[in-house]
Amino acid sequence: MTTESVSATTAVTVLGLGDMGSAIARTLLERGHSTTVWNRTASRTAPLVAAGATAADSAAEAVRSSPLVVLCVLDYAAVDEVLAAVGDAVSGRTLVNVTSGSPEQARAVQRWAREHGAAYLDGGVMGDPPEIGSGEVLLPVSGSREAYETHEGILRELGSPTYYGADAGLASVEFMAQVALGYELLIGFLHTLRLVREEGVDPAEFADRAAETVAMYPPLLKAIGEAVRDGEYPPDLGPLSVQSALMGDLVEHRRTLGADTVRMREVQELMAKRVADGHGEQGFSSLFELLGERG
Amino acid sequence: MTTESVSATTAVTVLGLGDMGSAIARTLLERGHSTTVWNRTASRTAPLVAAGATAADSAAEAVRSSPLVVLCVLDYAAVDEVLAAVGDAVSGRTLVNVTSGSPEQARAVQRWAREHGAAYLDGGVMGDPPEIGSGEVLLPVSGSREAYETHEGILRELGSPTYYGADAGLASVEFMAQVALGYELLIGFLHTLRLVREEGVDPAEFADRAAETVAMYPPLLKAIGEAVRDGEYPPDLGPLSVQSALMGDLVEHRRTLGADTVRMREVQELMAKRVADGHGEQGFSSLFELLGERG
Repeated sequence: MTTESVSATTAVTVLGLGDMGSAIARTLLERGHSTTVWNRTASRTAPLVAAGATAADSAAEAVRSSPLVVLCVLDYAAVDEVLAAVGDAVSGRTLVNVTSGSPEQARAVQRWAREHGAAYLDGGVMGDPPEIGSGEVLLPVSGSREAYETHEGILRELGSPTYYGADAGLASVEFMAQVALGYELLIGFLHTLRLVREEGVDPAEFADRAAETVAMYPPLLKAIGEAVRDGEYPPDLGPLSVQSALMGDLVEHRRTLGADTVRMREVQELMAKRVADGHGEQGFSSLFELLGERG
Repeated sequence: MTTESVSATTAVTVLGLGDMGSAIARTLLERGHSTTVWNRTASRTAPLVAAGATAADSAAEAVRSSPLVVLCVLDYAAVDEVLAAVGDAVSGRTLVNVTSGSPEQARAVQRWAREHGAAYLDGGVMGDPPEIGSGEVLLPVSGSREAYETHEGILRELGSPTYYGADAGLASVEFMAQVALGYELLIGFLHTLRLVREEGVDPAEFADRAAETVAMYPPLLKAIGEAVRDGEYPPDLGPLSVQSALMGDLVEHRRTLGADTVRMREVQELMAKRVADGHGEQGFSSLFELLGERG
């Protein structure tokens, strides 16, 4: 560690030393930051103290030790418990909470931080603990823009941060939406693998071809995003009047094989409704107009 | 048209002159093939005759005119009607049926062709009529391998053919599976756009980021295909015991916003069952094992 790198470091406190919190503290130590750690079960601090960290006796004492505090615990029940113990010790500090939770939970902590005189950032960690410190780890962050700009450098030492706005819930929205979209694709893919295997097709060979097809979808996703933003729905995959003609065959084929029909029936119904409502010349994106009605 | 190109051509008959059949006949004429056309409503032959085609008075007469016959009608009710009229005239010829239908319907025509002494290929056309003749149009084909090898050249003049095997149903399986997978992704994406818009996020900006994420999925799809083929399920996205911890938050978030929860609840239940059954160390791919139970 050179003198130059020390001069660019910040004292950081890490609250919560599960696998992720420990990986964060270890990475901060490796990058030369003076690091204070605290964990409800104190024994978890030992390996980090051995690596150069300072263990604090209480969460409040830990928070008082650094201008930047990272909170990484199991869930929001644990968040509430830690914050109750920290109280006004957080005043004047920046709290970065990377505990997984909902947008509403993030917004509640943002209000709490404001009431206690702290700047607040909420973040997600998209990656595994051993990857912390590499650019592979995505860090969606939202909350105080000033705090983000002040501490962006240190976040970049942990992964690839992206700032989503002043509403602290936005990082969680991004995280949940991206994860859910992945599961939508993957569970639909598994049902499709079941279908083709039932028909005597090798699942791995089909998967190779499906991977090529999915690789062609990103431009269409962008076009659909624009259509939804603008409320104008050009015939992306062809007009709905033509697309909808296929849906009966798709549903029937799956039904015959005992494969899942949930989404195909939904698409069939939504397309039929749009066509019946006189929008048969629009594209798939226009089904968006009907989703609000299902809420 | 040069003498060389004529010598490499085949006489072809096209039965059915809707938008797709007409585009096929026109492309064959442009490539210098002697082309006979027939349509139930005879007036549709006029523009093609003007372009150099020969109109036949009956489907049987049309079939007798060429060694290769392309059948492209609206649905299998129309297929059955045309084949009944054609009867034994098809003997010794190759029938290529590109009418959209189910694998079972394709297999039934394959049996009919065998009984009538004809070679049979079933194909799908993945593309729009104006694109016929370009490599953009995908042509999944299955049925007689010998017929495919004999006529691959002419299929390549219409689009990009791929041969899936001797079972004539396989082209339809591929077509239906690929189309369904696309709709699985797209409807899941629309629900996700609704979710983020509800949270105040610009749908087009989210779509740009989602497109980047989806572009990273193809290697995972291939890995899942191999896992399903082998019946061995490494922890692709992390062990299910960890993945499943998130699902409650995802479902609750969507429920709070009135967004669709169908697939997230399904994934949650499947993961919980795998974990309860002692497979918490396996990956997402292992949910495949439970899909058979839902048939």
